[in-house]
Formats: sequence, C-alpha cells, structure tokens
Amino acid sequence: MSRVYNFSAGPAVLPLEVLQEAQADLVNYQGKGMSVMEMSHRGKDYMAIQDEAQANIRELLGLSSDFEVLFIQGGASLQFAMVPMNFLGKDTFADYVCAGNWGAKAAKEARLFGQVNLAASCDKEIPTRMPEPDELAWTPGAAYAHITSNETISGAQWKQMPVTGAPLIADMSSDILSRPIDVNAFSMIYAGAQKNLGPAGVALVVIRKDFAEKGNKALPNMLRYTTYIENGSMYNTPPCFSIYMLSLTTRWLKNFGLEAIYRQNVEKAALIYAVIDSGTFYRGTAAKAYRSDMNVTFRLPTEELEARFCEEAAKAGLKGLKGHRSVGGIRASIYNAFPVAGVEALVSFMKDFEKRCG
Amino acid sequence: MSRVYNFSAGPAVLPLEVLQEAQADLVNYQGKGMSVMEMSHRGKDYMAIQDEAQANIRELLGLSSDFEVLFIQGGASLQFAMVPMNFLGKDTFADYVCAGNWGAKAAKEARLFGQVNLAASCDKEIPTRMPEPDELAWTPGAAYAHITSNETISGAQWKQMPVTGAPLIADMSSDILSRPIDVNAFSMIYAGAQKNLGPAGVALVVIRKDFAEKGNKALPNMLRYTTYIENGSMYNTPPCFSIYMLSLTTRWLKNFGLEAIYRQNVEKAALIYAVIDSGTFYRGTAAKAYRSDMNVTFRLPTEELEARFCEEAAKAGLKGLKGHRSVGGIRASIYNAFPVAGVEALVSFMKDFEKRCG
Repeated sequence: MSRVYNFSAGPAVLPLEVLQEAQADLVNYQGKGMSVMEMSHRGKDYMAIQDEAQANIRELLGLSSDFEVLFIQGGASLQFAMVPMNFLGKDTFADYVCAGNWGAKAAKEARLFGQVNLAASCDKEIPTRMPEPDELAWTPGAAYAHITSNETISGAQWKQMPVTGAPLIADMSSDILSRPIDVNAFSMIYAGAQKNLGPAGVALVVIRKDFAEKGNKALPNMLRYTTYIENGSMYNTPPCFSIYMLSLTTRWLKNFGLEAIYRQNVEKAALIYAVIDSGTFYRGTAAKAYRSDMNVTFRLPTEELEARFCEEAAKAGLKGLKGHRSVGGIRASIYNAFPVAGVEALVSFMKDFEKRCG
Repeated sequence: MSRVYNFSAGPAVLPLEVLQEAQADLVNYQGKGMSVMEMSHRGKDYMAIQDEAQANIRELLGLSSDFEVLFIQGGASLQFAMVPMNFLGKDTFADYVCAGNWGAKAAKEARLFGQVNLAASCDKEIPTRMPEPDELAWTPGAAYAHITSNETISGAQWKQMPVTGAPLIADMSSDILSRPIDVNAFSMIYAGAQKNLGPAGVALVVIRKDFAEKGNKALPNMLRYTTYIENGSMYNTPPCFSIYMLSLTTRWLKNFGLEAIYRQNVEKAALIYAVIDSGTFYRGTAAKAYRSDMNVTFRLPTEELEARFCEEAAKAGLKGLKGHRSVGGIRASIYNAFPVAGVEALVSFMKDFEKRCG
C-alpha cells in the first residue's frame, strides 16, 4: 500500500494512525457488532464518542466552563450566515476584517442582516497579508468583530490576534489547534473540520454561553446556537462518523501535544519558505510577517512553469499543490497531520526543479 | 467478527458489503494513495463519487431533467426551516399534514415564516395513522403542501400519496427508496440519509428546478436551494464521506432493484405484523391500513414486560428495539439494508418471549 503526500487545502491529510484505527473498526466498532455509522446517536456507545470529542477540544483549547463546544453541520460557510443571523439586527452593526477571500465571504453574508463596517480591508493586495495593528478601525458599540485567523487561499495568517472592545469572533477553519491560542480573548471561534480536525461534514463552534444567549430567539432551531447548547449538539442526528473521526484526530493531537505540533508546524513551513527565499525562482505570495504556517503559497516565473511544476510533482507522489482556482500559483497545505517527510520531499523536489528549469 | 441485528431507527444498519468495501478502501481509496476523507472535493476522484451518487439517485427515482438532485448538510431538521425560508412569506400560507412527531416539527418551524394551515392533524391519536383522504382540507392558493411519508416514531406510513393542487413537498427521511413512487407528483422530496441512504451527515433533496427558482433570493447562500443547484452541491465543501457512503449504498440498491427491495420490505414487515396479529400479547401501535413497512411499532401488556423484552432481545443479539423515548413501547426499524435473517430471528424471539411471559 503506497500513500502519496497530499498537500490538499481541505479536505486534507489525516493522521495515518487515525485512518488505520477507523479502518480496523469500520464494520464492527470495538466489538459492538456494528459500525459507528450504524449506531443510534442516543445510545451510550456513540455518546461516549461525542463526549470524548468534546472533552478533547476542551482540554486542547484549555476551555473554562464559560465556553460551550458545539458540533454543527454546514461548515464554516453556514457559520458565515449563522453568526449575523444570531447576533446582528437591523439596528446594530458589526466589524469585519477582510484580509482574504474567506473574510470577504463572511462579511457578504452578514450584510443580509445588518450593517457591516470593514475594520480593515486588504483582501485584494499582493503580497497577501493581514492588517497592521494601526490600520484597524474598530467601531465603538459593534455587536461583534469578525476575523479570519488564517486565509487558506492567500496563505496569510494573523501572528498576534487583534484586540477590540467588541466580542471577538474568529473563523479558524484553517489553523484551529495548529498553535496555542488564548481562547479567553474570543467570544466565539468556529472551524470547518476538514483541515486540522477531521473529515468534512462537521464544523466546530466554541462559544461563550452568555454570548450565545444574546442570540436572536426567533430563528429556526437548527440556526440558533442555544439549540445546540441545550441539546448537547444532538437536537437532531449529528454527523456521527465525522465527529468520531474528529474524536480520534483530537486524541492523536493530545498525544502529540499542542506545543509540540506548533513547533513542528513552524519548522515544516520554515523548510519550504527557506527554499523560496534562497533565490528568485520562487516568489512567496504572502508578506513575510504574515506567512502562514498552514498554507505556503508561492509563484514560479511563468504559469507554464507552474503547470509543469504541479504535473511533475504529482508524478513524484506530491499531490494537490495547485493553488486555488481563483488565484493560481502553487499552494502547499501542510496541516498538523502532514508528515515532515512529505515537506522534505517537496523541498528536494523544489530544489531539483529549480536546477532543471531555473 | 460477529455483527448484531441492529433495529435502530437511524442511524441504522448499512449493507454489509458496502461497509466492507468502504473498509477495504478507507486508507487508500482505489489505489489513489489517500482516503476519500482526505481528497480535495474539487479533484476528479471525488467528483466521480459525487457524480455517481447523483446518477444513482436519478436512475432509482426515474427523474426527468426537470428535477435536480442536491446534497445538503443539517438533516431533515434543517429542511424543516429551509422549506419555509425559501417558499413561505409573510403574505402567503402553506398546508401541513401533521400525522406524527416529524410533521408537527416541520409545521412548527414554518410558523416562524408565514401562515400554516393544518390540512389534517392526527398526530396525537392512538392507534397512530395517516389521514383518510376525506379528512384532508387543502387550502386553495397554498404556496405548497407538506407531508411526511412515513412517521418514524409512530410507525404509520402513507400507502397512497395525497393529491393537492399546491406544489407537494414530502419529508421521506424514513422510507425514501424503500418503494417505487411517482416522483412527478412532487415538487420537492427530502430525506436525511441515515435510514435508507447511508450514514448521518447528509440530506438528499430532490427538487423541481422551476420550483427552486421561486425561492426567496435574499437568503444566505447556504440556505437557498438555487445555490446548491448552481454549484452542483459544491458551493462549499460537501460532506464527502457521507456522500461516498450514499453512492455505495445506492449502487447496492441499484443492483438489488427497487421493485425487489420493495417486495422484500413488505415481506419483512409482514412477518412481524403476523406475530403481532396472532394473539393479544402484542398490540400494534399503528392502524392496520397505515402500518409502516419501515418501523414496526408495538406494545406489550406492561412497561415492565417491554423493558424485559428489550433487555433479553439485546442479549440475544437483537439491538435497538426500544421505542422512541417520547412514546415508549417497542420499535423494530427494518430499513432496506436490514437482513431478512434478522427479522426471522426477531419473529422467533417474539414467539418464544410470548410463550414464556404471555
């Protein structure tokens, strides 16, 4: 069995040990006589899985009892809508930072429900970046402020989280649990699972209970955070298998250690950025101060060379390196589960490709 | 490896061959070097999976090009909200048939968005049933009429679909593809996957394109049917693994044949109903004319005997027979993938239990 190195931006590589455990148990989970996919979500066997997933998240993020851990379907894209539906009204306004495609999408959905102020907007700039602290124009009295901690497409990442007087909400889809954060600075964090947490099909929402309770009560059950809080994310059938995979992936991460994975993530990214910075053949897309440790984006001298780079890399077992269709270029997504050996293989390939084509 | 007989109402038993195929391919799908869970949803390998899932549904339901096949997260419960959000406004009204818990839940969400007329209401009656044709009071000019084809909790099922002048919408979560239907009688059908289609985490929506286009355009992207139509259910990352399992399950069903599975479903249910009707020890919960082929519900003389029945059955490898917490009693959910041998085992157990305790 030969696994490739999978640089996809999400869905993305999962820890091999996690996949192997899921495979061993797929038809008959822990001798229970059925698959996790077949279990009643209200039975004790599945409940134990979801409880572990929540406990792992609580421990990894160091959550106090002020916070609730929720599992919601629809990915970050549904959160783009649920956040303003819950917390923005016709007579209120919210601050959004648009530093890339995802922040802009979040702001667009919010405009359907209330007034959106752009606290900063640099999403069209190249090199891509996050706003400088002195650029941020927060609006006093905002219902909340929304940021995107890592822009997956542009490859720019907040290195220090901004401070604002309003409740801070962060879309952390592409760098959740890739580094320690001070969760107490936030009122809400959300993340689609399919990068650092597990497979697609579930979004993690970490929310202050008192903030959730401020939400619009006239919404349908499935669109109110309080419904998920009151029902332990089981108002309806949860996406059981995705949550099971998230429980295994966060268990793996606990064993690895959050500080240790952070150091490894920084080291992995540094190996690729070093090749980029070693000459003029490769050009990093993001401003150096904001380079993402999760998505390393760069260009080659021509689009023809970029196409050839991706094609030859794929033949060498380095898959998924093509940049997002909206921006082109190369993107190496190297989330928690992406192995160091795969980064080393990419670095060798880049050096060789430059020698041959530079 | 010993599998139990799993009578759970959903998530529910999946075909063993499907689970075994998924297991074999879990770490390395078809030699591609990665799991389905790790694949970019925009890559050709995953796209082929989702395309097959759609094609299988189209073929099994005999859909014309008037219909679109959509995959949406959030289960039937999110559909309870999306339907009125899209098709009901402050100045319009819709007809709902409430013949059980699920129909009532759907109507409740709709009331947030517009006027709901109850075309029939028998959800509190025992024996449980569907409305008689002459009870149905449709409202001329309704934006749509909503029914629940099979009430999973009560064990009552429409045997002949009602006719109304309004666009007919059916929640078919618990009997989709368990029998042939004339899909042309409907404007929209939806179903959470976790009973007859695959694991939890995805809902199937089959909708007339011209009906979808009548939907409210001021909704967030993730809550408009047209978003899913315009983007092939890939506006955002779909729940890839759930859709993969749905593609395998519908392939299995195509090979089995829809007429053949229907005959088998009727026969399986008849075996259990025959034991119920053979004496007075077991009492069927649903009126005979509306007995579900999917969820066979019955009572024993006392709650103590019901508890003992479930306990002893579980020890004999017959799991998940406890009725829904809201109604008690016994419920044997015997969806497409539930094996005939499991029904025969239950029938034997029921006869033996009656002899010992009757």
